[in-house]
Amino acid sequence: MPSTSVITAVYEITGDDPAARAGLVAVEQSHELPTELAPANAVRDSLAHVRSVEPRAGRPALATVDYPVDLAGGELGQLLVLLLGNVSLQDGVRLIDVELPAALAAALPGPRLGLAGVRARVGEPRGALLATALKPVGMTAEQLAALAFELAAGGLHVIKEDQGLADQPWAPFAERVPRIAEAVRKGGSGVYLPVVNGSAARFADQVRFARDAGADGVLVMPGIAGFGALAHAAEVFPGGIVLAHPSFLGGFTAAGSHGIAPDVLFGTLLRLAGADAGIFPSWGGRFSFTRDQCLAIADAARRPLHDVPAMLPAPGGGMTIERAPELLADYGPDTMFLIGGDLRRGDDPRRAAERLVAATR
Amino acid sequence: MPSTSVITAVYEITGDDPAARAGLVAVEQSHELPTELAPANAVRDSLAHVRSVEPRAGRPALATVDYPVDLAGGELGQLLVLLLGNVSLQDGVRLIDVELPAALAAALPGPRLGLAGVRARVGEPRGALLATALKPVGMTAEQLAALAFELAAGGLHVIKEDQGLADQPWAPFAERVPRIAEAVRKGGSGVYLPVVNGSAARFADQVRFARDAGADGVLVMPGIAGFGALAHAAEVFPGGIVLAHPSFLGGFTAAGSHGIAPDVLFGTLLRLAGADAGIFPSWGGRFSFTRDQCLAIADAARRPLHDVPAMLPAPGGGMTIERAPELLADYGPDTMFLIGGDLRRGDDPRRAAERLVAATR
Repeated sequence: MPSTSVITAVYEITGDDPAARAGLVAVEQSHELPTELAPANAVRDSLAHVRSVEPRAGRPALATVDYPVDLAGGELGQLLVLLLGNVSLQDGVRLIDVELPAALAAALPGPRLGLAGVRARVGEPRGALLATALKPVGMTAEQLAALAFELAAGGLHVIKEDQGLADQPWAPFAERVPRIAEAVRKGGSGVYLPVVNGSAARFADQVRFARDAGADGVLVMPGIAGFGALAHAAEVFPGGIVLAHPSFLGGFTAAGSHGIAPDVLFGTLLRLAGADAGIFPSWGGRFSFTRDQCLAIADAARRPLHDVPAMLPAPGGGMTIERAPELLADYGPDTMFLIGGDLRRGDDPRRAAERLVAATR
Repeated sequence: MPSTSVITAVYEITGDDPAARAGLVAVEQSHELPTELAPANAVRDSLAHVRSVEPRAGRPALATVDYPVDLAGGELGQLLVLLLGNVSLQDGVRLIDVELPAALAAALPGPRLGLAGVRARVGEPRGALLATALKPVGMTAEQLAALAFELAAGGLHVIKEDQGLADQPWAPFAERVPRIAEAVRKGGSGVYLPVVNGSAARFADQVRFARDAGADGVLVMPGIAGFGALAHAAEVFPGGIVLAHPSFLGGFTAAGSHGIAPDVLFGTLLRLAGADAGIFPSWGGRFSFTRDQCLAIADAARRPLHDVPAMLPAPGGGMTIERAPELLADYGPDTMFLIGGDLRRGDDPRRAAERLVAATR
């Protein structure tokens, strides 16, 4: 039974003396002072506690650390600081699991729409959701809108912008967003998610502009805009879909003895941060996650987690129409499949979209 | 001579065919579509170009890629997407150098105060700047204020909060910030920088509160709050010092064949993003950067970079009073030295601060 008063983190620890190292992690991530220097009268109920260290032959040891829930201050950002902030700068420690008390989970943003809400907004109650990206950068707003029309007419559920689009001269944000929103509306029943990558105050302005221009939500890059940007977008755009993009988050999930397991980052943490759907690089494409890692991300996005709504996993990255049936069988229909370049072979993106729709029926 | 029209990135590439891989990086980071699928009429001036690939015996190859400057759209966030966004999710590519045209550098935030402005605000025209952190979490606002008073009276220039402090029950933000600000003012001529880690809209509220409560700036964690948060804080708090903390940025700089070289991330990129001073883990403490890496960070923070003001490098992490003279000799006086736990050995933090001041005169 999960505790009501502690946040439990499990770390893989590489090195000679995992028990000693686990103790150092607990200190680094809470007091950041040698315990003997912590004022005894103040800190009793703020001390982290190493619950267990389990050595494993030929593999990193598993260390389980309990942090008093108050250390997170009920804030997502501080939870991230607590779980891995400073230790992210040290080698030999990798965060592989997190368990939160229900009250903290309820205090964090979580998805506003989540899997069920996205299905309702898209009008697809049961089947797999099909998505693609508008690209490449360098196309004009007119060209992007024409492409979006064809893709929507081909039956795709979600037409998002590529993360390479910004406020560039070829297709400025304020010009292209209303045009593409109109094209998608005319093309079919799909939704349109422009990418929002302005900094700070400009971020909220862009989300507001997208909302008023008839978009159906936004694509946000928490690795650039910050983890709080997901919930911020949902606040500014009530009812809008918030889709998370993994740009600039790869440092954490690279193979090795540091960072964060992909299912924790791209499943659990982005879900708690408020993504309705989360893109991650699927296996077999041009990125390096394994099949097991990808299915673990999907599971972390959807499995019961107190009262936090399920998030839609959105595998992408070098996926093809041909692989769609296999991927559908593996991930199941509660998934947003993101197919990019393969819809652009040949000159008829609408026909390619129709083939993708047919392949997943 | 740097080009006026391209952003130049240098990558270390590990693997069998670095030339082919460099070509894939250029595509991934710009069009994200096989070049033959990119609409020919639209994209000529948005194509990235591999300038050179230099194999090195027993070491990763060096690949130099030129990106048309317009791809960044004049935005810091998009520059980060461009330099490493998707490729951060792939192994075998590490960003080790960046060169920008002057016009783009001028469009990015950069430090508002920078090294010279922080010196002016602190009232220390030439000597090394000495800083420490208020910790551990678990102390009350009253205890933290009493400690801050002693440290300021001991002659420290900068008293910042630990990144482990948030809005927790022991010392809520709204209670502790005015108290500590007052204590530091009474204690000496040092400045006080509370940590701001609320998400999204709350971030700006906290910065505003800190400004109005008499703080001298804020500590910001761009790995959590986003890179745009540094400039956002400077906007909300004119004249306030913006100090960057590396929490949750470690995934990128871990040793290995991916991510970002520490001097690029903690020097160049944080400086462009608007940090007046940037904390990084120094060698010899409990983190893993080498002496050469740390001195390269300090150099990237201070060296000429078009008209971008110099940023103060702020080495920290397990540093001691005893090592201060050695570190001062290595880093030079244009440095903010962050000394933590070592000021707390014994019962007299004021005396310890005085010893630190004496050791660096």
